[in-house]
Amino acid sequence: MATTVRAAVCLCLWLFACQVRGSHIPAEMNRTIQSLLQHYKISSRERYDGKPVFPSDQNKKIETKLIFMGGVLESYEKLLGHMLKQLPTPSPQIAVSNAQPGSAITPASSSPNNAGLLAGRDVRSELNYILKKVQELKKRRYHEQEKLLQGLQTLRDIKMNDRIVQSKALWQLPQLYEEASSLPEIKMQRRRRRRRQTKAKDRTRA
Amino acid sequence: MATTVRAAVCLCLWLFACQVRGSHIPAEMNRTIQSLLQHYKISSRERYDGKPVFPSDQNKKIETKLIFMGGVLESYEKLLGHMLKQLPTPSPQIAVSNAQPGSAITPASSSPNNAGLLAGRDVRSELNYILKKVQELKKRRYHEQEKLLQGLQTLRDIKMNDRIVQSKALWQLPQLYEEASSLPEIKMQRRRRRRRQTKAKDRTRA
Repeated sequence: MATTVRAAVCLCLWLFACQVRGSHIPAEMNRTIQSLLQHYKISSRERYDGKPVFPSDQNKKIETKLIFMGGVLESYEKLLGHMLKQLPTPSPQIAVSNAQPGSAITPASSSPNNAGLLAGRDVRSELNYILKKVQELKKRRYHEQEKLLQGLQTLRDIKMNDRIVQSKALWQLPQLYEEASSLPEIKMQRRRRRRRQTKAKDRTRA
Repeated sequence: MATTVRAAVCLCLWLFACQVRGSHIPAEMNRTIQSLLQHYKISSRERYDGKPVFPSDQNKKIETKLIFMGGVLESYEKLLGHMLKQLPTPSPQIAVSNAQPGSAITPASSSPNNAGLLAGRDVRSELNYILKKVQELKKRRYHEQEKLLQGLQTLRDIKMNDRIVQSKALWQLPQLYEEASSLPEIKMQRRRRRRRQTKAKDRTRA
């Protein structure tokens, strides 16, 4: 009970903070999420079990935070895809009534047997709307991070048990080990050079 | 044939460049890789098929390059682990002779039947040495990147088909969407503020 109250208070405070500083979430999106939460109902005990799906970001640098957030958006994209796949597929009648905007619901589709499918259709459009919003944000603001995440994905897809892959990876190792050893040094050198340049500029001006 | 020659020339040039600027790879490590390549022998056609295991890094920023390289080292760690697992397990006699440094090889272990196991033991120690070098570099220079990669791993482990997970993720979405929308703006604001501060400093000095 105490956890539920604490969570509700936190949510209210957060919503208030969003209102004060101007939220990025369209009201329509907020409404759709609330509506979907009615469909994906779970108990308070399950919701506030202290294990959030997305852990709080422990990264300090903004560059790293952006990459992690790119990963979070990617996960939402996959998750919403899974949720859409799990919905019941619409019957041909419903598909026909869907294809004619403004048409009345046919008796077949309004029968009690189809109630679940109709609800599924609403949930489908709501999920599709949320998916679109996530994809738009990802495409607009996380394009650079997306490329890195795709690169990391190719690393995960390496066939570790393949002998040819193993041999080729061994062959590449000297070059990559060299690069991996020198990269942090290059970063340090660049930082030092920038500091020296700033100091030199200061001296010239003085 | 032409590809083989081209690859050999590239390797020679690269080795020469390493010698000129001072390589980070210990000679022992280079020797061990060459020895392992004898064990993991593949044809030239297989090696130079134009599909390297690790693609060349397309990232431009050094921060992003470091994260990708952290991922490459992580992949080598996994790959070497797989290679070690695939080796034949040593018999108890060999295990005993391994436990006594400098002891002569017993007749049982030097029999033709055990030749493969003996070779496997050499390969094992060589792979273990390479694995140690990769892990040392990762721990010493890629500690920060490792944390981010672990965070991204937890995202990949999300149980997408679980209804409780789906509901909890929907519940977290408004907050995360807000954060994901504002992060790129925070980055831009910081950059602008830094520029303004530098200009103001310049004006004060002038």
